[in-house]
Amino acid sequence: MPANPLTAYELTDLRERHSVKWREYPSDVLPMWVAEMDTPLAEPVAEALTRAVGRGDTGYAAAGRLPEAFADFAADRYGWRTEPDAMRLVPDVMSGIKEVLEIVSAPGDQVVVNTPGYPPFFYWLERIGRKVVRNPLACGPDGYRIDLDLLERDFAAGARAYLLCSPHNPTGRVFTRDELLAVADLADRYDVRIVADEIHAPLTHPGARHVPFASLDAPAAARSIVLASASKAWNLAGLKAALAVPGPDARADVALIHEEVSESAGLFGVIASEAAFTHGRPWLADLLAGLDANRRLLGDLLKAHLPGVGHHPPQATYLAWLDCRALGLGDDPAETFLRHGRVALSPGPNFGPAGHGFARLNFGTSPDRVTEAVRRMAAALEAADPR
Amino acid sequence: MPANPLTAYELTDLRERHSVKWREYPSDVLPMWVAEMDTPLAEPVAEALTRAVGRGDTGYAAAGRLPEAFADFAADRYGWRTEPDAMRLVPDVMSGIKEVLEIVSAPGDQVVVNTPGYPPFFYWLERIGRKVVRNPLACGPDGYRIDLDLLERDFAAGARAYLLCSPHNPTGRVFTRDELLAVADLADRYDVRIVADEIHAPLTHPGARHVPFASLDAPAAARSIVLASASKAWNLAGLKAALAVPGPDARADVALIHEEVSESAGLFGVIASEAAFTHGRPWLADLLAGLDANRRLLGDLLKAHLPGVGHHPPQATYLAWLDCRALGLGDDPAETFLRHGRVALSPGPNFGPAGHGFARLNFGTSPDRVTEAVRRMAAALEAADPR
Repeated sequence: MPANPLTAYELTDLRERHSVKWREYPSDVLPMWVAEMDTPLAEPVAEALTRAVGRGDTGYAAAGRLPEAFADFAADRYGWRTEPDAMRLVPDVMSGIKEVLEIVSAPGDQVVVNTPGYPPFFYWLERIGRKVVRNPLACGPDGYRIDLDLLERDFAAGARAYLLCSPHNPTGRVFTRDELLAVADLADRYDVRIVADEIHAPLTHPGARHVPFASLDAPAAARSIVLASASKAWNLAGLKAALAVPGPDARADVALIHEEVSESAGLFGVIASEAAFTHGRPWLADLLAGLDANRRLLGDLLKAHLPGVGHHPPQATYLAWLDCRALGLGDDPAETFLRHGRVALSPGPNFGPAGHGFARLNFGTSPDRVTEAVRRMAAALEAADPR
Repeated sequence: MPANPLTAYELTDLRERHSVKWREYPSDVLPMWVAEMDTPLAEPVAEALTRAVGRGDTGYAAAGRLPEAFADFAADRYGWRTEPDAMRLVPDVMSGIKEVLEIVSAPGDQVVVNTPGYPPFFYWLERIGRKVVRNPLACGPDGYRIDLDLLERDFAAGARAYLLCSPHNPTGRVFTRDELLAVADLADRYDVRIVADEIHAPLTHPGARHVPFASLDAPAAARSIVLASASKAWNLAGLKAALAVPGPDARADVALIHEEVSESAGLFGVIASEAAFTHGRPWLADLLAGLDANRRLLGDLLKAHLPGVGHHPPQATYLAWLDCRALGLGDDPAETFLRHGRVALSPGPNFGPAGHGFARLNFGTSPDRVTEAVRRMAAALEAADPR
C-alpha cells in the first residue's frame, strides 16, 4: 500500500511552518483555507532542494531545463506536444497571466473571468487597467459548467480576452473537450484571445480528464497561452516558478515576456519544479489517491453532519466549494465557522458576488483533520443558531 | 583566523548551480557578471532552509518575524530605529520600488534615477508609465558623487520622486551623511519623494559608513521609503524576499502595499532572510573581510595588468565599475572581454549612456578567480589589439 502524503504530519509539525496558512490565525484555529497542502515534499523535490542549499545555489533564476521537464510531463500525461524553447519562465501563474494579458490586450480592454473566481484575478486585472467582465458559471444538478450563451453575450459585447481557469478554482470543475471546443469556436467567431490558468491540471481526479486548451484543434487554441506550474500539485506555491506555454500561433507573443520577468522568478521554484515534473509522478499518484479518498470522506461527512450544505465533489484540486446559502449564515458563512467553530475556510465573497453564501474548504490534509473541520463547522452552526 | 566564504567552492562545484550566473554562458567562460556570489550559504541560513525542506514549508509566504529581525539588525548596525509593524513584505527590492512608486507618484510623473544605474530600474519604471529622468553622477579624483546642482535642476524641472540607490550600484559609492542631508534638503524644497534602494547596505566596507536615508533628521527623510533585503549580503537573490521600510511620515503609504503583493514573495526568502539578519552576522563579518581583501587585490591586479582601466575601489558591494574608455574597445568593452578572453562582465551600456566604455566586474568570488578574470581580460585586450 502506498504511503499517503496527507497523513505524514501531526498538527504540531505543521504549526512550525512559516507559511501564511499556518501563521494567519491563532493556534486554536484549524486552517483549511489558502491553497497549501499539509504534505511533506516529494522525495525527489526535497533532495533537489537539499542539494541546492548545499551548494549555495540561491542566485537569480534561469529557466534551465524546466521547460523540457514540463514538456515531457505534458506529453506523457495529456498527450500534449509543446515546444520548450517557446516557453517563458515567470514567478507564478498570476504574474504570468498579467504579463500575457499586457501583451495580448491593451489598457481598458475587457477581459472575461468566470465567477466564482480566484480572488487575485480581480485585483491584478484591475491593477493593469483591464476591465473585468464577470461571467457566472451555470450550476445544474451535475455541478458547474460554462454557460455558453452568457459567454457568447460577453464575447459579442467586445471582450478582448478570456481568462479561463481550467480546471476551475474554486468549483473543481474539469471542463470537457466538447465544452472547451465550444469555447474555442466562440473565441474564433469573436476574435477573443484565450489565456488559460491550468495550475490545477495535474490534480485531476479519476473520472475526469484534463484537456490542455492549447492542445485543441482550433485556431483559438493555437493562439492561446497556457500558464502551467508544479506549484499546486507538489505544493510549491512559496517557491515562485511557473511557465507561460504558447499554442503554436502564440509563440511570438510569449517571446515578448521580458527577461527581467523571468529573472524575478524563484530559483528554488525552478529547481523544485524540474524535479517534480521529472521524478515526482509516483508521489503525485500517492497524493491523488489520498485526495480522492478525502473528497469522498468530505462528501460523506457533509451529508451526515451538515446536510444543509450544497456540494459537488470536485473533479480536480483539493478545494471544495460549499454552498451554505440554506444555512442562514448570510453572505460570509466562513465568518461564522471561524468565530464559533475555530476553523478557517476561505470566504466565498472573495470569489466575487457569485460567492455570497459560499465558503471554500481545503481538504489537502489528513482525513482526521478533514473530519475535525466538519465537526467544528457543525458545532459552529449549532452555536450560531441553537434551534 | 576566520573562514573566508569566498574560497569554499571549486569551479566544478559552482558549475553545478542552476542560477543564471552559471547557466548563461558555456563552460569555458568565467562568469563575473550578475550579482551572485560564489559563496556557500551562511550556516544559520542553510539550517533554516533545511528545516523548511524537512517540514514541507513551501506554501504562500507571510512576513512572519522578518520585520522584527530586520529592525534588530538595523538598530544594531546603523543605529536606525524602525517600526516592524509598518514594514511590508515584497518579493524583491525592484518590485518593492515599483509598488512604492505606484503609490507615491502617478503615471507620467518624472522619477529621477542616477546614471550609471541598475538596468532593471529603467525597464520597470517605463513599464509602470513613469518618465525616467537620467541624472548622471559626477566623477572626480575621489570617485563618484551626487551632483547636487544637476539634481536641483532635475528636481526644479518637476520631478515627483527620486529613486536613490544607496550604496550605489554599479559605482560602489557610499554616500556621506552630509551628502544625503543635502539631498533631503533639496527634496524638501521641491517636494520630491525619496525612494531609497539600500539593498547593498550590509556590504559596506571599512572606511565608509552607510546612513539609512529614512534615519536622517529631515522632513524628506521622514517621508522617504527604504527598500531593504538580505538578498545581496547573504546571496539570496533567487529566494525572493525584501521589505519596504517607511520613514515615520510614510507609514500610510507603505500600508497601501496590497497583501496580494506580500503573498507573492518567496517563503524561503522570508525564512532565509530572518535567519540571516538574526544569526548571520558572524558570517557577514567573515565575508566582508574576504571582499575587502578582494577589492585590494583587484586594484593591484588592474594596476599591474590593465593600467589603462580607470577604477575607484568600491566603498560597498562586490561590484567594480571599470572605466575602459582608454582601452579603445568601443561602447561595450565587455563584449571584447567575453569574445577574446572568455570572461563575462556586465556590459556598461546596460547601465545607461553613462556606461558607454565601461564594464562591471563581480569580485564576489575566490581571489584565484579574480586573478584569473584579470588575466583573461588582459589576454583579451592583447588578442583584440596586438600592438
